[in-house]
Amino acid sequence: MSEPIWSYVTPGIPDELFDRLPGIPMSKCETRLLIIGQLRLKADSILWDIGAGTGTIPIETGLLCPKGKIVAIERDEDVAGLIAKNCQKFGVNNVEIKIGSAPECLTSLATDPDRICIEGGRSVSEILEYCWERLQNEGRAIATTNSLEGLYAISESFAKLQARNVEVVQSSVNRLETRGNRQVFAAVSPMFIISGEKL
Amino acid sequence: MSEPIWSYVTPGIPDELFDRLPGIPMSKCETRLLIIGQLRLKADSILWDIGAGTGTIPIETGLLCPKGKIVAIERDEDVAGLIAKNCQKFGVNNVEIKIGSAPECLTSLATDPDRICIEGGRSVSEILEYCWERLQNEGRAIATTNSLEGLYAISESFAKLQARNVEVVQSSVNRLETRGNRQVFAAVSPMFIISGEKL
Amino acid sequence: MSEPIWSYVTPGIPDELFDRLPGIPMSKCETRLLIIGQLRLKADSILWDIGAGTGTIPIETGLLCPKGKIVAIERDEDVAGLIAKNCQKFGVNNVEIKIGSAPECLTSLATDPDRICIEGGRSVSEILEYCWERLQNEGRAIATTNSLEGLYAISESFAKLQARNVEVVQSSVNRLETRGNRQVFAAVSPMFIISGEKL
Amino acid sequence: MSEPIWSYVTPGIPDELFDRLPGIPMSKCETRLLIIGQLRLKADSILWDIGAGTGTIPIETGLLCPKGKIVAIERDEDVAGLIAKNCQKFGVNNVEIKIGSAPECLTSLATDPDRICIEGGRSVSEILEYCWERLQNEGRAIATTNSLEGLYAISESFAKLQARNVEVVQSSVNRLETRGNRQVFAAVSPMFIISGEKL
Repeated sequence: MSEPIWSYVTPGIPDELFDRLPGIPMSKCETRLLIIGQLRLKADSILWDIGAGTGTIPIETGLLCPKGKIVAIERDEDVAGLIAKNCQKFGVNNVEIKIGSAPECLTSLATDPDRICIEGGRSVSEILEYCWERLQNEGRAIATTNSLEGLYAISESFAKLQARNVEVVQSSVNRLETRGNRQVFAAVSPMFIISGEKL
Repeated sequence: MSEPIWSYVTPGIPDELFDRLPGIPMSKCETRLLIIGQLRLKADSILWDIGAGTGTIPIETGLLCPKGKIVAIERDEDVAGLIAKNCQKFGVNNVEIKIGSAPECLTSLATDPDRICIEGGRSVSEILEYCWERLQNEGRAIATTNSLEGLYAISESFAKLQARNVEVVQSSVNRLETRGNRQVFAAVSPMFIISGEKL
Repeated sequence: MSEPIWSYVTPGIPDELFDRLPGIPMSKCETRLLIIGQLRLKADSILWDIGAGTGTIPIETGLLCPKGKIVAIERDEDVAGLIAKNCQKFGVNNVEIKIGSAPECLTSLATDPDRICIEGGRSVSEILEYCWERLQNEGRAIATTNSLEGLYAISESFAKLQARNVEVVQSSVNRLETRGNRQVFAAVSPMFIISGEKL
Repeated sequence: MSEPIWSYVTPGIPDELFDRLPGIPMSKCETRLLIIGQLRLKADSILWDIGAGTGTIPIETGLLCPKGKIVAIERDEDVAGLIAKNCQKFGVNNVEIKIGSAPECLTSLATDPDRICIEGGRSVSEILEYCWERLQNEGRAIATTNSLEGLYAISESFAKLQARNVEVVQSSVNRLETRGNRQVFAAVSPMFIISGEKL
């Protein structure tokens, strides 16, 4: 049996370890760490990850919650294939990939989640509101956005849903990166991470 | 038996859950997540945490590595007491608190670490160089600083020690915080996190 | 005749050169530079600065527009006195200080402005909408905020008013500051600067 | 006579107003404002701008100091042509473009500068040290860098030269930018701006 590609108990898998497709978004390592921190996962959490993209959140959380279950929702079939490929690469087998558009495709999911992560989707408000209904009591929902419209929509939805302990964090990490023969500070794209609890 | 104060498998304990002492530094939640990500801990890691301050890194890593062992080095007796108090609060029992000045006090530690985290100390270069000698092969060392001198000293030491895969990340996260009846964006103090591997 | 305290043609007066009152907000040097850049002042601009606080914007813009006129609106009498004191300190004599609450107190101002800067005030939307009516054609309005509510209110008002070329900039500058005998990077409080044009 | 392209007394010319060449660096508007603020120009300042690139600093400072003189030093002939083109576009006629490698080519400049801005160059230390010798008393020197090596070299040179009032500012501004039909926050590349005075 070969050694696993990621054998650590901590999140923060380097970006370059994931298979990628051109144009498909990926939560960068530093942003991902902040998202995972906000998720506050339990060992047996059921997480819906909507707009999973490259699949970095399903893979990190799948590894952190071996007794849990992650449902990765992705409307594009090629992208779903990419997530599957990455799951296989990291030996993650508790991720279910659901191809479809949220929130419609979520109705077919039998089990209610205790954690929700919305990384994308056509209408974040609609998705968040449907997910909230399904979210277990004492559950947590996280949504990320890099746009002002997204920030508004998510904040308003959380207010409307009377979410508790709403937190907004904006990551704006700089990384020393190699460019030619120089090492320059480059900004990781800033991202807002909004979280709330259902109590 | 009472419920544990932190029952999640993910790092990112909110700052306000820790007992504090005035003037004693604490790695803020968002910075801590980036540090922990860089540590890449194994389930049985042996971590030396130097300049442990409030003890947030020992506690988070103690929880993440139940089969591991964390040695928190702290020269001030009162601060050491604070770490002990926080360990007890979080039910962490794999943290050994060592009162003393690094690097001198490290010579009495019998077992070599596979992970090192330097959060403070009089001479970061001297500490890093001693720790590096003791660091197991394939081990990782992390040092944090908010000063230019610190950044220089750490980078130069890593270069001198021929550390591999040296990475520099600068966290500069903003958080929405409540001030009176308003919610304003406030900056978490920026921090440089430098990491390297011994290969 | 004594030498002027600030004899440069460029903005960016160091914070410590201003007289201050405890608790009275001040736009920090780096944020101020971004605000002034967004104002795009003409030599003879008429600028209303609402919520002028310590008076840094009136003083910098007063110096930059010797043929222009700045009206500093401030509801607190003590703060108005502080602005006057700073104007005197910097030898600025084209700043008119108006004590009163915006937007009500603005009706008594005879001349319409071509530049507006809203740094504070009870209801930013109401102020911005009144100011916009008074703003000359091809004029520019700037509003600053460090809160999410402020960012919403300003963006929505600009959209409602059909402002053109709306721009949002978020400053998050770090400065090396001396703390004891160390120099550490500290974050200048992040601020959103929103600007729009009346065409 | 046609209207000037930039008729404002404040710096902060939008990036898109400058002619550009692919691959030639340009100080972004927000970073430029911080640089200009640190330069503290007088109406008749003599500024050497080394590694002028697209020419944004010569043009902004040329406009701000009509009685002053800016020498733009650039080793690449095509880039020098770009600076000339931008000067013409903005009607700036107090910029002298000097083609050559700093510090060698600086020896032929007869007049000592009271302001120095080093935006690039093969050896920043060597350039800074030569410029410092030539810098008038009470003059100011600024150097910018996005690299750790650059930050070291500049800080060490300033220390060696016994520069006074050394300041380090790191800009890390976010801008709302249009991507397709969305407006997303994007980071302006972080830049260190280091300044010092000769007293």
